Amino acid sequence: MIKNVVLIGSGKLATQLGNHLVKKGVNIRQVYSRTLENAERLAEKLNAYATDKFADIQTNADFYIIAVADAVLLSVIEQMPKVKGVVVHTAGSMSMDLLIRFNKYGIFYPFQTFSKEREVNFQEIPILLEANEEGVEYEIKELAQKISGTVMSCDSNQRQKIHLAAVFACNFSNHMYAIANNILKDSGVSFDVMKPLIKETALKTDLLSPEKAQTGPAVRGDKNVIDKHLDMLNGDDELVVLYSKMSRRIAELNGKVKVEEK
Amino acid sequence: MIKNVVLIGSGKLATQLGNHLVKKGVNIRQVYSRTLENAERLAEKLNAYATDKFADIQTNADFYIIAVADAVLLSVIEQMPKVKGVVVHTAGSMSMDLLIRFNKYGIFYPFQTFSKEREVNFQEIPILLEANEEGVEYEIKELAQKISGTVMSCDSNQRQKIHLAAVFACNFSNHMYAIANNILKDSGVSFDVMKPLIKETALKTDLLSPEKAQTGPAVRGDKNVIDKHLDMLNGDDELVVLYSKMSRRIAELNGKVKVEEK
Repeated sequence: MIKNVVLIGSGKLATQLGNHLVKKGVNIRQVYSRTLENAERLAEKLNAYATDKFADIQTNADFYIIAVADAVLLSVIEQMPKVKGVVVHTAGSMSMDLLIRFNKYGIFYPFQTFSKEREVNFQEIPILLEANEEGVEYEIKELAQKISGTVMSCDSNQRQKIHLAAVFACNFSNHMYAIANNILKDSGVSFDVMKPLIKETALKTDLLSPEKAQTGPAVRGDKNVIDKHLDMLNGDDELVVLYSKMSRRIAELNGKVKVEEK
Repeated sequence: MIKNVVLIGSGKLATQLGNHLVKKGVNIRQVYSRTLENAERLAEKLNAYATDKFADIQTNADFYIIAVADAVLLSVIEQMPKVKGVVVHTAGSMSMDLLIRFNKYGIFYPFQTFSKEREVNFQEIPILLEANEEGVEYEIKELAQKISGTVMSCDSNQRQKIHLAAVFACNFSNHMYAIANNILKDSGVSFDVMKPLIKETALKTDLLSPEKAQTGPAVRGDKNVIDKHLDMLNGDDELVVLYSKMSRRIAELNGKVKVEEK
């Protein structure tokens, strides 16, 4: 049976979700955005109605997917009309219970980083689910499996741990790239030289646990190189502390000689 | 003209280098390792002679590639016979001048992380070169271009900066994965769920600078999520400090509201 979906939001995630659901034969009936122009732009692509008024949201759809910024999520939920279908939000770090005013509700959390510049392959994106009752979970799962090959149920506690883990594995890793970029600035060397290494480091997770995949001076216990690097960072006290703390952690985790912390 | 190469070392890098050079028609004449068995194992694959004695190293080859651990590099260099060909070492953080006892010498530094478990695509690995004179640089470049599409000359200062940058972008990123793995431990969630995100974060560097690619609570200035995460990390003081320091750095770098540091 073809499902009818109302999409609440018109940002990066709403856009990618809408596109992939339509490709898989789901009917996006309506797009809400607080900015009518944005609602119309996306609705046109998805062959849906557009609105910027909560009162105009159709109440008889099967699904309502709320894909808005965390900061406005609660306010959006409060202003929505009382609908009969399943209402899900897509915010990894927000509780399912925010949706308690609806009868059927849950979480539909595509676990990936989205940017305007890159189209992601939804099939490979884990979608994490939670629902207020079993029948609802079944309905959400059915929708999720249309676009993803990895659909898994997890409770709020698990989802929050996953989100916290992602801040380290994704957001903080990216900041490591930014520090590398800054180190190369004014050296006459392009950041391009780092890209094969960055990609290989990420791809290696397929074969090896991060602990086993660890390379570099800290895991080798190579004090000469570590000391040279700390010298080179001299003048940026924060990076000196960061470098020595990380090196000590890596050495400890792998049972190597203790790296002296600055 | 087919070049003759003597390979000093039989570890991960020596093995991968040897294999790729042979594939590209280079003649590996001899493999030295301090352990005869290792020398023989690799030599057999490369159709070369094996030795564990410095005195037996042939002195009339075109190239001598030293691919040994940083810690033993100097000792290996000192024990080598005086040879006529070009002698290069492959250690990113070590000076070219260690090779000053030879007439023709330089650096041949494949800039990648090597593991036994994954065969890397050498064509995509930058090889960083340096030489004691222009003619020697030309000879090394010719050899490097047989196996890599990105061959670049850089001086010791640049190479050391690249190596330092790599510790952040590769070694420390990998440690971020390890922290994520540890957060998920005992949660009933497999680390597998993180892999698509880790890969996408790395692949995004092709399109966006790390500064522009930054996502997550810190760059959004999302104090609610940050506070919740710091609560969850409670009991691991070091991770609390690391999380808040990184978040403050990310927020500052992107001109967002100040994140309070713990």
